[in-house]
Amino acid sequence: MAVGESVLPTLHPVAGVQLATLSAGIKTPGRADVVVMALAEGSSVAGVFTQNAFCAAPVKLCKQHLPLGDIRLLLTNSGNANACTGEEGLADARLSCKTVAEGFGFTGEQVLPFSTGVIGERLPMERLLPVLPNAAAQLQDDGWSHAAQGIMTTDTRPKGASVQFTHDGELVTVTGITKGSGMIKPNMATMLSYIATDLAVNQSLLQNLLKAATDCSFNRITVDGDTSTNDSNILIATGQLNLPCIEAAEGELYDKFSAALTEINIQLAKAIVSDGEGATKLVTVKVSGANNEEECVKVAYAVAQSPLVKTALFASDANWGRIVAAIGYAGVEGLDDTLVTVHLDDVLIVEKGGRASSYTEEQGAAVMQQEEITIDINLGRGDYSDRVWTTDLSHDYVSINADYRS
Amino acid sequence: MAVGESVLPTLHPVAGVQLATLSAGIKTPGRADVVVMALAEGSSVAGVFTQNAFCAAPVKLCKQHLPLGDIRLLLTNSGNANACTGEEGLADARLSCKTVAEGFGFTGEQVLPFSTGVIGERLPMERLLPVLPNAAAQLQDDGWSHAAQGIMTTDTRPKGASVQFTHDGELVTVTGITKGSGMIKPNMATMLSYIATDLAVNQSLLQNLLKAATDCSFNRITVDGDTSTNDSNILIATGQLNLPCIEAAEGELYDKFSAALTEINIQLAKAIVSDGEGATKLVTVKVSGANNEEECVKVAYAVAQSPLVKTALFASDANWGRIVAAIGYAGVEGLDDTLVTVHLDDVLIVEKGGRASSYTEEQGAAVMQQEEITIDINLGRGDYSDRVWTTDLSHDYVSINADYRS
Repeated sequence: MAVGESVLPTLHPVAGVQLATLSAGIKTPGRADVVVMALAEGSSVAGVFTQNAFCAAPVKLCKQHLPLGDIRLLLTNSGNANACTGEEGLADARLSCKTVAEGFGFTGEQVLPFSTGVIGERLPMERLLPVLPNAAAQLQDDGWSHAAQGIMTTDTRPKGASVQFTHDGELVTVTGITKGSGMIKPNMATMLSYIATDLAVNQSLLQNLLKAATDCSFNRITVDGDTSTNDSNILIATGQLNLPCIEAAEGELYDKFSAALTEINIQLAKAIVSDGEGATKLVTVKVSGANNEEECVKVAYAVAQSPLVKTALFASDANWGRIVAAIGYAGVEGLDDTLVTVHLDDVLIVEKGGRASSYTEEQGAAVMQQEEITIDINLGRGDYSDRVWTTDLSHDYVSINADYRS
Repeated sequence: MAVGESVLPTLHPVAGVQLATLSAGIKTPGRADVVVMALAEGSSVAGVFTQNAFCAAPVKLCKQHLPLGDIRLLLTNSGNANACTGEEGLADARLSCKTVAEGFGFTGEQVLPFSTGVIGERLPMERLLPVLPNAAAQLQDDGWSHAAQGIMTTDTRPKGASVQFTHDGELVTVTGITKGSGMIKPNMATMLSYIATDLAVNQSLLQNLLKAATDCSFNRITVDGDTSTNDSNILIATGQLNLPCIEAAEGELYDKFSAALTEINIQLAKAIVSDGEGATKLVTVKVSGANNEEECVKVAYAVAQSPLVKTALFASDANWGRIVAAIGYAGVEGLDDTLVTVHLDDVLIVEKGGRASSYTEEQGAAVMQQEEITIDINLGRGDYSDRVWTTDLSHDYVSINADYRS
């Protein structure tokens, strides 16, 4: 089950990025499960990785290779996460990098590896390695859609987003693909995301931009609060346009790119939530009137992760008591319950510490029938606001995760 | 559904405590839903209450009355939580206290009120008030079992525990009752707990003892992480025995009482988890080898609240990857994944950053068939240990909470 339409939008090619999607039969024979992205010389690459202490072997290697610079290849396999595999797993990842690099005349250190799938099992190197030399011959400028499918695991549909804008007569492209069903299956549903632009951007600025865009998108979604051993978000700037390199966080081009990047990240993040396992609703939890960002995020996640709120959403039940209880236990010190208001979309449901006097069950029921809902909470104590996206908690969620066997 | 046997143990009367269970038809006509506990003059009373910012009217009154001392009555109603009811709710609670007190010649300030049930609706005072004058005539020394039933809401069975020990030839009793299905339904499943002893204990020491016992019992259980607007844990010392008042945290009598009190609290807390909605398993998550208590609790709750771990438990799937991922994202700084070990009961499943080489699926499957399971995690970095109790996440949980309408 998934929320909304499943049509992949047009993914515009990005000059300086070519993609090859191969089949190694890592988990399922015949399935496209290996993606190689080749980057033009001089590309800048930034990365944000999982904070999970049990981070996977490829994440460890990415963190080693990225600072060396001159990254030319990204190698992704689905079907096996190469996580919790110890020293052998690291050696497997290293050998994969070296093997794919050889076909291009690069070194293994110029490759960033990514894996997603089952935890705790070694990569089937005997199947993976033989296909890697084929990558160079199969590169395509227009390979984003195939790649979006090649990186899928439990996803029910490929996910991508693409934005173009003009600057000084040049057409700028930002295109991204992602996979994950809401970080709700660490063994199978790692979040991987690759975004590229044909602009030139200073590497440390690129890293800052990626961090900021990740924080307001992928770091604001939750299906069940679990995060994976392999989550990675990568941003590439190939510098293939006739435009100056963006060197500082200022100016019109920076602003345009920053806005496009944020938009792409949010679209990709929402695509993951909408494909959350068993999801029937896409829910935005917005918190305003807080004293700081931390208060916003605490309250938003308390509500967004409450199984009681989520089961009520599944039942299309405007259960304001459960929302209020979650706000109350979020841990905001000195919260004055009489100043808190809660809206479901535009319907005021809570004020002055209880049910709004104007509220009727019919109003709540009407909003709850929608596939997309906003729970809008004002804490009545400050000027900060933020929001997270989540889903409901359905029978299908339990079925998928109880029946699944790693 | 619930885990284990549903037999209420013998609840020994406590000299100085009498109980009356009445029926006001607050939610369901004819149901026993009002409990009055009368305390002997000179009793000490301690209380621990919900931290929820939306705390209910009776909790607010308890916090006002308790410091005044000389508490003589505890008034509990089930079926309506009198929460999120604003000023009117406070007035209702005050009038209830005054009315029940009049039948005994006490003042309203000598009453602690408790409510549990639906959030956001006013108490049906027209049904509640008329039965309160009957309380005095119906008091019984041996009324604990009836009271355990009178305070129930979504509980599938009454819950109580009772311990006796001798000291200097005197038989000391500690008896308690509780209700709640795991704090998983703030609108209906508030945790209420009342424990009494016939010992005499200094009031501030009693408060410290209750706080400590609550922290290692009720504050260590989770079904879904939601906490209620009405949670309360009350400890009464009536001083009816021929033993000196316990004035300080030292000596044999103190040690015996402290141990008995902890035991009672843990029994009651585990009874709540075992009655968790849809629960088919009672799971202890033990964390040792930590640098401090905070690390233990972070990791234990991360595992105990992970929907992925909980659905795997429901499926009797020894999915060590999900446990490891939850440990990894618990937020323990500098955690060395190669030093972490995980046992399922006595079976080593994780070591050196991955699946234990000695582990077989058959070993894990055997443990998973049990109704009670311990997940034993050693972080390999210090000497602290702690544990929490939780349940699995089943289809019934979703059904109960999605179908329930406040």
